[in-house]
Amino acid sequence: MISFGSDNHAGIHPLVIEAIAAANSGFTPAYGGDPWTEMLRGTLKSEFGPHAIGVPVFNGTGANVVAYASCLKRYEGAIVAEKSHVDVDECGAPERVGGFKLLTVPTKDQKLTPAKIREKLARRGDTHAIQPRMISITNSTELGTVYSIAELKALGDFARAEGLLFHVDGARLANAAVSLGCSLKECTTDVGVDVLSFGGTKNGLLGVEAVIGLSERFVRDYGEDLRYTHKQSMQLASKMRFFSTQLLALFDGGKGKELWRRNATHANAMASLLLSEVAKLAKSGLTLTQEVQANALFVRVPKKIVSPLQSKFSFYTWDESEAENGFVVVRWMTSFQTSESDVRAFVAELARLL
Amino acid sequence: MISFGSDNHAGIHPLVIEAIAAANSGFTPAYGGDPWTEMLRGTLKSEFGPHAIGVPVFNGTGANVVAYASCLKRYEGAIVAEKSHVDVDECGAPERVGGFKLLTVPTKDQKLTPAKIREKLARRGDTHAIQPRMISITNSTELGTVYSIAELKALGDFARAEGLLFHVDGARLANAAVSLGCSLKECTTDVGVDVLSFGGTKNGLLGVEAVIGLSERFVRDYGEDLRYTHKQSMQLASKMRFFSTQLLALFDGGKGKELWRRNATHANAMASLLLSEVAKLAKSGLTLTQEVQANALFVRVPKKIVSPLQSKFSFYTWDESEAENGFVVVRWMTSFQTSESDVRAFVAELARLL
Amino acid sequence: MISFGSDNHAGIHPLVIEAIAAANSGFTPAYGGDPWTEMLRGTLKSEFGPHAIGVPVFNGTGANVVAYASCLKRYEGAIVAEKSHVDVDECGAPERVGGFKLLTVPTKDQKLTPAKIREKLARRGDTHAIQPRMISITNSTELGTVYSIAELKALGDFARAEGLLFHVDGARLANAAVSLGCSLKECTTDVGVDVLSFGGTKNGLLGVEAVIGLSERFVRDYGEDLRYTHKQSMQLASKMRFFSTQLLALFDGGKGKELWRRNATHANAMASLLLSEVAKLAKSGLTLTQEVQANALFVRVPKKIVSPLQSKFSFYTWDESEAENGFVVVRWMTSFQTSESDVRAFVAELARLL
Amino acid sequence: MISFGSDNHAGIHPLVIEAIAAANSGFTPAYGGDPWTEMLRGTLKSEFGPHAIGVPVFNGTGANVVAYASCLKRYEGAIVAEKSHVDVDECGAPERVGGFKLLTVPTKDQKLTPAKIREKLARRGDTHAIQPRMISITNSTELGTVYSIAELKALGDFARAEGLLFHVDGARLANAAVSLGCSLKECTTDVGVDVLSFGGTKNGLLGVEAVIGLSERFVRDYGEDLRYTHKQSMQLASKMRFFSTQLLALFDGGKGKELWRRNATHANAMASLLLSEVAKLAKSGLTLTQEVQANALFVRVPKKIVSPLQSKFSFYTWDESEAENGFVVVRWMTSFQTSESDVRAFVAELARLL
Repeated sequence: MISFGSDNHAGIHPLVIEAIAAANSGFTPAYGGDPWTEMLRGTLKSEFGPHAIGVPVFNGTGANVVAYASCLKRYEGAIVAEKSHVDVDECGAPERVGGFKLLTVPTKDQKLTPAKIREKLARRGDTHAIQPRMISITNSTELGTVYSIAELKALGDFARAEGLLFHVDGARLANAAVSLGCSLKECTTDVGVDVLSFGGTKNGLLGVEAVIGLSERFVRDYGEDLRYTHKQSMQLASKMRFFSTQLLALFDGGKGKELWRRNATHANAMASLLLSEVAKLAKSGLTLTQEVQANALFVRVPKKIVSPLQSKFSFYTWDESEAENGFVVVRWMTSFQTSESDVRAFVAELARLL
Repeated sequence: MISFGSDNHAGIHPLVIEAIAAANSGFTPAYGGDPWTEMLRGTLKSEFGPHAIGVPVFNGTGANVVAYASCLKRYEGAIVAEKSHVDVDECGAPERVGGFKLLTVPTKDQKLTPAKIREKLARRGDTHAIQPRMISITNSTELGTVYSIAELKALGDFARAEGLLFHVDGARLANAAVSLGCSLKECTTDVGVDVLSFGGTKNGLLGVEAVIGLSERFVRDYGEDLRYTHKQSMQLASKMRFFSTQLLALFDGGKGKELWRRNATHANAMASLLLSEVAKLAKSGLTLTQEVQANALFVRVPKKIVSPLQSKFSFYTWDESEAENGFVVVRWMTSFQTSESDVRAFVAELARLL
Repeated sequence: MISFGSDNHAGIHPLVIEAIAAANSGFTPAYGGDPWTEMLRGTLKSEFGPHAIGVPVFNGTGANVVAYASCLKRYEGAIVAEKSHVDVDECGAPERVGGFKLLTVPTKDQKLTPAKIREKLARRGDTHAIQPRMISITNSTELGTVYSIAELKALGDFARAEGLLFHVDGARLANAAVSLGCSLKECTTDVGVDVLSFGGTKNGLLGVEAVIGLSERFVRDYGEDLRYTHKQSMQLASKMRFFSTQLLALFDGGKGKELWRRNATHANAMASLLLSEVAKLAKSGLTLTQEVQANALFVRVPKKIVSPLQSKFSFYTWDESEAENGFVVVRWMTSFQTSESDVRAFVAELARLL
Repeated sequence: MISFGSDNHAGIHPLVIEAIAAANSGFTPAYGGDPWTEMLRGTLKSEFGPHAIGVPVFNGTGANVVAYASCLKRYEGAIVAEKSHVDVDECGAPERVGGFKLLTVPTKDQKLTPAKIREKLARRGDTHAIQPRMISITNSTELGTVYSIAELKALGDFARAEGLLFHVDGARLANAAVSLGCSLKECTTDVGVDVLSFGGTKNGLLGVEAVIGLSERFVRDYGEDLRYTHKQSMQLASKMRFFSTQLLALFDGGKGKELWRRNATHANAMASLLLSEVAKLAKSGLTLTQEVQANALFVRVPKKIVSPLQSKFSFYTWDESEAENGFVVVRWMTSFQTSESDVRAFVAELARLL
């Protein structure tokens, strides 16, 4: 069944499977002592700047916990958007596994601002309160919105001015970079991000993310800690070559082209196509609840069309708070694997139902 | 370089890559809602008995922590062999991530017995002491030894008599089962094991283990907990199909043959070959420090030959406590990928150096 | 300096020091094996009902963590009012020490309702989300408001209907009971509370609280766990007799009168007196931001009077969000030790400054 | 009943109750903002040296966890004697509450040495192993033995040479200092101890210990952390004055004499008296299993006398491993409250039974 449910309903990009197969030759040391991981170390510096160091991890929950664990003390917390993934979708892993209290900030679009963050700084030095130490944002956000370079820069400057670390949950960073028309470095290292959870799985890999220390200060102060928290947080693969090679494929695309960009460009384009096609449905009664800036649409639709549409296409209902009035908000998400014909078939069925 | 360093220096079995590629078709739900994972659920029951339920995890550290977390209360501990993997090779993940105190028992061969375990039961009911709740053994052990069926049965009976849960860290269970000439079920479910960390990575997979609840009582009391601790412990893959398909390949071998058995049989056979070839080196001065029952040899060798041999073959020094006398203990480990010619080349070089 | 800063700025009630001195005779077993603790066990049943069991702990943070730890699984969370003490004033102890994620609900008066709680139940059964398992309220609240018996009963009924546990942080339960004109049992056990953090320190003790299991279901399912989490959470006193004797003094007042009630009645009366005296200050510009139902006033005052008033009386500024407009909210809190003359001196100075 | 069971079976020294009563006057800020705690800050510097900073805590479990939590990173562990209190008598609080893995060293007398510690340093830099960061000893030990100044100095030097922190669990430090004939500073700060769990409860207080940072490097690097972990670990008293005043009483004895020394001198003297009286029981068959260096005797006695003796005096059986041969090891412990007549009555009964 064609799915607009999530970008992780897609499979593996063929170049990635090729890369895995190509790495499957002979013996090599485990746990990162292999040539692929060594090559990845250089690639990360090329992509993210001269200080960059990183470790492959298994999934986004692991990435965020490892990133936090590498630098937060027992009594330090991360400021995050309320209802962000790290807040509500990790079954309490940050709290239980990491021990971290999240300082949550209500938002409409899941985007933090210096002004909103400042409210959480009021109790610095008060031993009764968890001490804010990190700004942790998601880009693109769970709501498909993208922080602009200026917004990112403002957060990076604020973080430095206030002695905070700046973390980006970039499970969909590629989609954000494509949306911004910039390199990965321009929307992370260059705006002052200290540490990054970089997503690969949603963008065509079998299953790899990376925790990447970007800034000089982070690498100096926490680079060594990262090595240990990587292992301790149960995110260290023994046959690491098969994980590193996936990231290498994502960065160089096997042929000198950035696969991450190609895949995300396609995914975003499919969301744009879906948006424009839906817009053509005159008087549809459909309304966007969030700007479409990456690869997701959040759309308020008549509740009655959801089940019929889901019988042919997979997607999720996001918000049922208006269900009594006959409307729900659904999420339609595209991926590297979504085709134009998938979109057109979906919109045709949608039109039929409306 | 040919490696006798570890069975995780090997690559992926070709049938496993085939299985991954075969699963890479179209869209499918994430997090285990896919047909491969559904099929795996049935396969686990076929392999391990009617109560068996299981979840794929990323590595052995994750498997053990998820297994413990699913059933141990805050003040309950696991009885383990001192210097077992869970004790010394997981960077404190059980303690830090899980919060579990390990009750360690000194052994020579890393095999626990009811008598040794009984000593740890003395303080039951004393609120000042962590309460023993689980026996957690490794089979085959880190020292390449294998618990016999009788030894396993004795532990299983003891566990039930004493109200303890019985866990097996089976990172190399396949090697143990082959050594014992039995099915996976016969050396786990049938001897009273409640929950199993089942290893795939060291036996030819890209990187998958599974936590499998085996006994009726475990599944009834902790089956639901396992679902949550799986996610919370950061071991839930989004594109689960590519993990489940690896385990399916391991169980059915793509052709109705048990790939786990074929791979482990080969690995064990290569260890036996290595053992017999080494035995032919008359007056070599080499001595085994442990019985060779699975796919590893622990051998006391003259220290002076280690570096020259390591310049051509990869392996680890295990124990340097006799280094001042000119001897060290080394570990030579074989895998599904080790060939007869690898072994013969290694022994030839060894003979030359002695 | 006379303090309206907090009820823990007061000292120890003389009857409590007498009780400590009286217990200081000869040898007695440690850790609760003494006659005073044995007597306390009976007293708790008299006060709270036949199932009640309890353990003395050192402070409120400890009480809440022990209460949670005794019954919440790793993936279960407590629903609490946003900005309640357990949320913002325990330096992350619930998260770091306990591993618990708090599911916070915004409120104006820090009082939860079934309707607000229901929103947090939407993701039951979803392994990606922490599972709500406990309603944890504060009575009287941090804002000096008191849940009515009807409100408590509604929460207790809701908890049972939804399979949730019901916890009360009763650091100031005595003040609430006096406000409600009921016994401690009537506002806890009888409305369906399962487990209680009972406060003594703010009501005249040197420093003791208690975690008390109240309901039959709690005691049956978690009574044994409570014994271990008490010790493990570092809340078990060795010379327990001197802690138990304080609670005994609080319950029986040394003379068959309830000291908890006498002390709380006085504290609440002083708050009422302060309220009525302040109300006499015509056109003062002072406004209450919360109803005065226990022993605290939250009052919006001209910012300029705060420093002069604080130079003679101790109290805290609670909310500075309107500081730019020249107003702040201050908290004035009374205790068993506050005298009528303290109140009158304070109001006189306040009148002079206005 | 006269108790030789533990020094915490004793009550409170009268000077300590006097000090508590004396502090019970008027209002004072909570959580350490009071004059008694301010005075304590100076006293700690007088007693332990110019860098000393400290916080009162509730019990020994809390003291050790706060000490560890203030300075150990997530992947750093403490090297401790196997079966020390922190290893076996805290219900897993270090592991569960702190997340710390203990690196245990087998000993006969619970005394660590540089040579024994060195074995635990072998895997420094190996990310698969918890990293040793602290030496944590107990003085006097759980077995009543005392580290000599030379032994302490050797550990302090070793700690500095190896980049380790040096912690002393001094639940009975006073007894050790008296045994050594030195000041508290001479057996801690002066031998290189970085952080101390200082015991008061077993030496005559109602219930207070202190975590004291001693060395310049500790205070510089972790002094701030200590403030937060104190609160977060649930060890911060609100009515702090009543805890600080106990410690003040212990240090100055209310009259310029060191109460800690007077109390510990008496306790040790009673143990010596007991030892000499027992030695007079010719051919008793009693043998000491540990040297008597502080306030405890560990004595191998005929099993048959234990119950009759316990019917008149309280004490514990320590080791039953020889019970089948008719012998057990018992512990007899003295305190500030033990009188000469208590000792003589006990020995008389013992003589009668033998």
